[in-house]
Amino acid sequence: MRYFEDFAVGSSQTVGVHELTAEEIIAFAREWDPQPWHVDADIASRSPMKGLTASSVHTYAVAARLLSRMEPAAGIASIRHELELPNPARPGDRLTFTMTCVEKRPSESKPDRGLITFEGVLANQHGTPVMKIRSLMLVKTRPAGSPSVARPSRKED
Amino acid sequence: MRYFEDFAVGSSQTVGVHELTAEEIIAFAREWDPQPWHVDADIASRSPMKGLTASSVHTYAVAARLLSRMEPAAGIASIRHELELPNPARPGDRLTFTMTCVEKRPSESKPDRGLITFEGVLANQHGTPVMKIRSLMLVKTRPAGSPSVARPSRKED
Repeated sequence: MRYFEDFAVGSSQTVGVHELTAEEIIAFAREWDPQPWHVDADIASRSPMKGLTASSVHTYAVAARLLSRMEPAAGIASIRHELELPNPARPGDRLTFTMTCVEKRPSESKPDRGLITFEGVLANQHGTPVMKIRSLMLVKTRPAGSPSVARPSRKED
Repeated sequence: MRYFEDFAVGSSQTVGVHELTAEEIIAFAREWDPQPWHVDADIASRSPMKGLTASSVHTYAVAARLLSRMEPAAGIASIRHELELPNPARPGDRLTFTMTCVEKRPSESKPDRGLITFEGVLANQHGTPVMKIRSLMLVKTRPAGSPSVARPSRKED
């Protein structure tokens, strides 16, 4: 478990690969985002995207699945996620996820927690970003007596 | 299909109900967001949320599923989605989704499209919001000769 103290501003980690398939795009969309251009390859081929693309929700889900391969943060709550979709995610894309800690500050009122802003980029095998995520998370500080994790850590002011 | 012209600023629509269950929260999280506090009720009960909560991705997916019950918009692309999580979504929640068109403007360079900002609120049976979504979408204008839909529409300046 990684606590507030364990995230150094500027530190970054990349995980992957998740390979998108047409079958997964259609199956996910059928269940959660059944818009015609996500569930039907023919309709998709005549759409402005000219082919199947993963729904925003599916793309976000792939990022979350890759993120879960990193050691978990001692999260108290997700406050906000900003998702940008600069390019479509398509069948055959081999996706990796890079997460960077870009900002952190301790809570002013509660010493057991702090706010961290993470920036994530889900990119395909060409390095083209298909989703950029900026997340504000409330993360626990390390409980007294809890051992520090075996990774670089840095106290922030 | 609803085109750019069919969305009036200020117009709103509500759909529902999606009832969250512990089984669905755990099944979704196991597949897409397997953080310990989303997949294990015991760990969740000892977490800061004091019980199971739907992951951000799952909550967003429920909103998309409810949205799909509305007549589809002639979307060209999702540009950005901002997700806020003001309160947790929990087993037993009966969720409804309200979508409001809050801003629109025609493209300056391409007459076949325009930008629309939508605000969505996913709320439980007590009216408590569990997710607020602000989405910027690129939407097609109605093709020449295409019949107007049977709903109030208004031309914007």
